[in-house]
Amino acid sequence: MTDIETRPTSRVLPPDVTAEQFEKALEAFRDAIGAQHVFDTDETVRPYYDAFPVTPNDADFAPSAVLVPGTTEEVQAIVRIANEYLIPVHAVSTGKNLGYGGSAPRTAGSVVLHLGARMNRILEVNDKYGYALVEPGVTYYDLYDYIQEHKLNLWIDAPDLAWGSIVGNTMDRGVGYTPYGNHSMWKCGLEVVLPDGDLLRTGLGGLPGSNAWQLFAPGFGPSPDNMFEQSNYGIVTKLGIQLMQPPPAAQTFQITFENADDIQAIIDTVLPLRINMAPLQNVPVLRNIFLDAAQVSTREEWYTGDGPIPDDVIKTMQKELNLGYWNFYGTVYGPPPIIDMYLSIIEGAFSQIPGAKFYTTDTRPHTADDRGAHTLHDRHKINTGVPTTEEANVFNWIPNAGHFFFSPISAPDGEDAARQFKAVKSLADEYVKDYAAQFIIGLREMHHISLLLYNTKDEASKAETLALTQQLIADGARDGYGEYRAHNALGDQVAETYSWNNHAQRRFNEKIKDALDPNGIINPGKSGIWPARLRGRGL
Amino acid sequence: MTDIETRPTSRVLPPDVTAEQFEKALEAFRDAIGAQHVFDTDETVRPYYDAFPVTPNDADFAPSAVLVPGTTEEVQAIVRIANEYLIPVHAVSTGKNLGYGGSAPRTAGSVVLHLGARMNRILEVNDKYGYALVEPGVTYYDLYDYIQEHKLNLWIDAPDLAWGSIVGNTMDRGVGYTPYGNHSMWKCGLEVVLPDGDLLRTGLGGLPGSNAWQLFAPGFGPSPDNMFEQSNYGIVTKLGIQLMQPPPAAQTFQITFENADDIQAIIDTVLPLRINMAPLQNVPVLRNIFLDAAQVSTREEWYTGDGPIPDDVIKTMQKELNLGYWNFYGTVYGPPPIIDMYLSIIEGAFSQIPGAKFYTTDTRPHTADDRGAHTLHDRHKINTGVPTTEEANVFNWIPNAGHFFFSPISAPDGEDAARQFKAVKSLADEYVKDYAAQFIIGLREMHHISLLLYNTKDEASKAETLALTQQLIADGARDGYGEYRAHNALGDQVAETYSWNNHAQRRFNEKIKDALDPNGIINPGKSGIWPARLRGRGL
Repeated sequence: MTDIETRPTSRVLPPDVTAEQFEKALEAFRDAIGAQHVFDTDETVRPYYDAFPVTPNDADFAPSAVLVPGTTEEVQAIVRIANEYLIPVHAVSTGKNLGYGGSAPRTAGSVVLHLGARMNRILEVNDKYGYALVEPGVTYYDLYDYIQEHKLNLWIDAPDLAWGSIVGNTMDRGVGYTPYGNHSMWKCGLEVVLPDGDLLRTGLGGLPGSNAWQLFAPGFGPSPDNMFEQSNYGIVTKLGIQLMQPPPAAQTFQITFENADDIQAIIDTVLPLRINMAPLQNVPVLRNIFLDAAQVSTREEWYTGDGPIPDDVIKTMQKELNLGYWNFYGTVYGPPPIIDMYLSIIEGAFSQIPGAKFYTTDTRPHTADDRGAHTLHDRHKINTGVPTTEEANVFNWIPNAGHFFFSPISAPDGEDAARQFKAVKSLADEYVKDYAAQFIIGLREMHHISLLLYNTKDEASKAETLALTQQLIADGARDGYGEYRAHNALGDQVAETYSWNNHAQRRFNEKIKDALDPNGIINPGKSGIWPARLRGRGL
Repeated sequence: MTDIETRPTSRVLPPDVTAEQFEKALEAFRDAIGAQHVFDTDETVRPYYDAFPVTPNDADFAPSAVLVPGTTEEVQAIVRIANEYLIPVHAVSTGKNLGYGGSAPRTAGSVVLHLGARMNRILEVNDKYGYALVEPGVTYYDLYDYIQEHKLNLWIDAPDLAWGSIVGNTMDRGVGYTPYGNHSMWKCGLEVVLPDGDLLRTGLGGLPGSNAWQLFAPGFGPSPDNMFEQSNYGIVTKLGIQLMQPPPAAQTFQITFENADDIQAIIDTVLPLRINMAPLQNVPVLRNIFLDAAQVSTREEWYTGDGPIPDDVIKTMQKELNLGYWNFYGTVYGPPPIIDMYLSIIEGAFSQIPGAKFYTTDTRPHTADDRGAHTLHDRHKINTGVPTTEEANVFNWIPNAGHFFFSPISAPDGEDAARQFKAVKSLADEYVKDYAAQFIIGLREMHHISLLLYNTKDEASKAETLALTQQLIADGARDGYGEYRAHNALGDQVAETYSWNNHAQRRFNEKIKDALDPNGIINPGKSGIWPARLRGRGL
């Protein structure tokens, strides 16, 4: 994939760094943060490799060592040493973003900074103004537990799997599913260690004594916060996130649709209900049968033959689970009269699609003999600020399951959804990979999260999944669909598709990179952004 | 104020540029965009001076010439020439931001690019997805007219005075008053001429064929859009702005409060009604009697004596106009049953404050003998997407009125509001300047827009207003209040107050500036950001 130097021993050195230089850097790191917080044995570094490897060579995204700083000052010290020895550093909060590379760095031989292990304090939670200020190690579970313990009147907005870091999710532009699902929008105030070791607080964090750092993001002059998302321009050590105050009540619904072809009508029904933030108040999701079935069963329960799961087996799955090919989930909030009004509008609109069935958590309780109710009740938790990790059941679908994402953005239009679905489904069938589809619908766009499951111990399965996804990215770009996020192995390809005006975005990003990080030490190659020193290492 | 070179003739040259070099640059500009689009006589340049000058010397913020490009390519050509001759350029859309400097550049002798004069096309309005794509010359009136003419189902969100540019307002982080009042948040997709003449489209504008440029702002990797707000990093030539689809109905209310001291209770009542976006769904405003009286009367109608307007005269104003010292305006939206429910919650909450009176546009019609109803009905227009310029009546309050803003941000807390109000009021009284107060309340913060009126033909009045505002900025920073926006004459001082970690924000901003604009030609000094070549010209 790249021309990086690899070594026969388990340690992968950074580009252009000798073993001797690397040892000196390790010594300096040990002096700075304590030897016990520097991991450099195979046993201690291995857990930071990509948990779902998709390339044949483990060394492609292998860290060389792991540092566990305890304070912002230690992060600054690490960054200064990294500049001195030209050691690339990749900071992760908790590294739980498994479908996009986990803790693994883009550039092999990078040192991983595991921020979350020791920097995990909840610095403030304010329920009058509705926000929290957290360090990278604070997970959605941690914040939820804190709020319960202190009896605060606040909801969290967690992603599907709540085990990860708030900082990590937000800065990689993850989403959640309550009305606060656009995490990027609700973040407010960052503290960032810059690539030269300097320390920046954005917005009103720059004004000593302000009580509004977590209340108003911009401050005075340009606002750089979104430049630190999905980039390699700095290491976020504190993040403010605004939190929702719970409504009087909430009700979650499930609508099942019989046919794969219903997708166009479903999405076209969603848009007018969603764009005005009511009656669809939260970030609703449309999931196909594979994704829902994988929560409560294994593939071999349904099919053990060759090739893609046949249509008649899919029908059997639907029937036994009492689910549709498509299943739509959302939650309405407010005083009960408003909830009732909204639910009736929603039911009325979708009932125009033949075969649609409408359930709520009340009308479809989660009983032992109704496995198809599982996701409805799990989404209710997620949509009402209760963290869960039930969606990780998907990893039981096939043996040694890993997953890989193709995540294009488009208009929330039925025709776009149908075109994307058909394209991914037919290519996935061709490659015999199960494609668990989820359309996440914002106010004016949808994230189509195509989850591709594969066997991480099977080299052929890995290679096929990588090839399949590369094909999807290329086909998607040809059709005008750009990805919002990508695995380490795909970031260069995705960045390449944003090619307007001779790659103006890349040229702009690189100019910023070189200005802030002249030695190119922060996560080289992230999102296809390479520093001058390593440019050309990507595609 | 600065050591800029001034000349005895009316033309003010840019720093370090000779008259001969400047003439050569003008020739190159004429070749690039046509001689008829290059203004360089006193008569043609004078309209671009600050309309409300506050410093004694007109030359402080004087343009040297004005260029009127017709296309993005012409803007690129101008920028390339400016780099060659080291001519600073200040791009304005329509230059109607009069309280913050109008068309005047920060650096005297800059060439003004009047983008809006010829680049004024509405490129797309999409009512299915709710957005517009516009050039800099498109005003709020223009977009409104287009929507009416094409019978589109969309509202605009205009600021108090709708005569200005959507691009200009948004990129200077202006606000409006419908639920879409946070313009920065609803912008989506920029085209920017960079300081080296290169052209960038942000987000999905980078992906050829995407239909989501105006639907999802970030794209892939870092998102620079907010770096172009209130900065001098580029010239925005196209902007996407998302638009609200009208609700079934809307009702605007006015609540009057007797006493200046009520402010604390009022703001403390607002927060819980506002933070959850309901029942206060729009961006409500709290205005004092001076601001409302100035819409419908002149100062001399009430008082012609020396010193600040006495309290008994204020009481007379309140009585005759049937207004409170404070007057609160907002609008609720939805089907009528929801409107009624929300109005009753709002009325119930504020009626706890003794003397509060509640009106709606229905219960208080705008009749010839009820001048105090004027603002209620004008806010109804603004809050329901109808452009107006009635607020410009404030310029009739005193002869030759100019206004100047002190605009701190703080928590939406009664104590903060009372402290700020007292501080500004007592200093304004001391300086004998009328202080028209407006608190604009977002979800978690308030913009306190202190409008200070002065006589632009009176040198003493100008000097006092400048000194007063400088004092307010200094006192505000001491108390933890930072400004969100500033006049050319104050940008350096405000930037100076964002001093955390040895001015980390300034150092970061300057690093970006030097990377993007090594010759320092785009609006040097804007928001206190000076390029290396001119650093030190500020404070």
